Amino acid sequence: MSAFIAVDWGTTNRRAWRIEDGDPVDVMRDATGVLAVAGRFADAAEQVRARLGDLPMLMAGMVGSNRGWVDAGYVPCPATLAALAARLTPAGDDAWIVPGVCSVSGTRGDVMRGEEVQLLGAVAGGLAPANAMMCQPGTHCKWARIEGGVLARFATAMTGELFALLRDHALIGAAMQGDVADGGAFRDGVARSGEGDLTAALFGVRAASVLALRDDADAAAYVSGLLIGADCRAQVRAGDTVHLLADPALGALYTAAIETVGAVAVPVDSHAAFLAGIIRIRELQP
Amino acid sequence: MSAFIAVDWGTTNRRAWRIEDGDPVDVMRDATGVLAVAGRFADAAEQVRARLGDLPMLMAGMVGSNRGWVDAGYVPCPATLAALAARLTPAGDDAWIVPGVCSVSGTRGDVMRGEEVQLLGAVAGGLAPANAMMCQPGTHCKWARIEGGVLARFATAMTGELFALLRDHALIGAAMQGDVADGGAFRDGVARSGEGDLTAALFGVRAASVLALRDDADAAAYVSGLLIGADCRAQVRAGDTVHLLADPALGALYTAAIETVGAVAVPVDSHAAFLAGIIRIRELQP
Repeated sequence: MSAFIAVDWGTTNRRAWRIEDGDPVDVMRDATGVLAVAGRFADAAEQVRARLGDLPMLMAGMVGSNRGWVDAGYVPCPATLAALAARLTPAGDDAWIVPGVCSVSGTRGDVMRGEEVQLLGAVAGGLAPANAMMCQPGTHCKWARIEGGVLARFATAMTGELFALLRDHALIGAAMQGDVADGGAFRDGVARSGEGDLTAALFGVRAASVLALRDDADAAAYVSGLLIGADCRAQVRAGDTVHLLADPALGALYTAAIETVGAVAVPVDSHAAFLAGIIRIRELQP
Repeated sequence: MSAFIAVDWGTTNRRAWRIEDGDPVDVMRDATGVLAVAGRFADAAEQVRARLGDLPMLMAGMVGSNRGWVDAGYVPCPATLAALAARLTPAGDDAWIVPGVCSVSGTRGDVMRGEEVQLLGAVAGGLAPANAMMCQPGTHCKWARIEGGVLARFATAMTGELFALLRDHALIGAAMQGDVADGGAFRDGVARSGEGDLTAALFGVRAASVLALRDDADAAAYVSGLLIGADCRAQVRAGDTVHLLADPALGALYTAAIETVGAVAVPVDSHAAFLAGIIRIRELQP
């Protein structure tokens, strides 16, 4: 295949690779996310070409949202890399944006944008089996089911956003200024999440602070355990294997919570998964 | 009993009554809550006496917190009106503050301040039976068990605070600017809360907005249904009777959610409950 540029263009960051003969040979990363571009997407894309070469460009992520360059829409579940390739949206010269994926059932729906390339790419690249449960933790944590290599369905939990809301704006936020890492306080939170009363468990942080039952330095890790624990308990059953696309810090927390419910977490390299997916989409591009 | 002044002094409002021969004969209400007083509690108390008479004063609520006039501490569960009366904290001339109530079990705890007078007062005043499950919805919703007339245990859910956090600061908040009332959207939220994945259900509001599956005007009522539904499902079982101390608007929402889980809600007049409780404490005062 001829050389091209692949861009994973998110809300706050972007990462771009020059792909030659199906392999990444150069990479750049900067903080020119969708919010920082402020509408000047053509200029922002030329910066990438100035760095990586004047080549065709394939983009995925929030660059295709209604706050991005061009709204690239959504492909419905069940979704494949071929369906994504068939619905590429032109943006600028010799450049295209990969659509997101949606699932709709009556008045219930869910959306993803950017994760679909990683999820289906993990299977295309042999990093995960064709029948797999996958998890991408973050601000909006994605839980996806791949069946026969197809993205069959998924659910999004606002786990990371809720943690930030609580820390920055809630009454319990004053106590949540400590670090978050796997340890006793995080594990206590995961255990407590099993009682199914999240909003009451969260107020317990206030009570524990007022009554001096827990060191405030542990409160953030405890709340993280409550939220990630609730997230995993809602999605994972004992005996499941979860393929986890996460950075090391968040990956360690989710691995601990997944193991607590009796399941197994298998790490997957999310950048490798993205590359495998976007290269396959380029191959399939009409 | 001799005349006295009873004050329900909260964070943002206060309500005071002159009690003569065990009956309220005059009342005042203003927005001079603990936050508005800004430390000048003796002056703020004299305003009440200037209006209702130069009488002994019994206060309850956040006036007894560490941000109030004097920290009145907590009486542990199981708690009675006699235990509260025995632990009144002097504040200024001929004035006392009722302590709060705490429950502690290992590193887990809970606290209330102000609600205890209503809860135990409801029983003392014959507004609720001596064995009752009670609920006081609000920013921090209290669920209490009264056993043999004693406040045996309770749990606090940050239901109202979480709703306000989401509306004011979350990504889904932009869609949550409509009114909240009992209706189809609220009931949909209560039904959806039964799936036990609150953080995923919350993200569904974003997806429904992006995919135009639900009118944004209904989003606030739907989220209220999710949160109140989750709150009720965690605390109430089919067949329970819940004595509900709430204003009419919140009372209607909790009644609908409580009925959805197959339980019965019985409204209790919270001001009458407060008066019954504080009058009994005055009678028991050493």
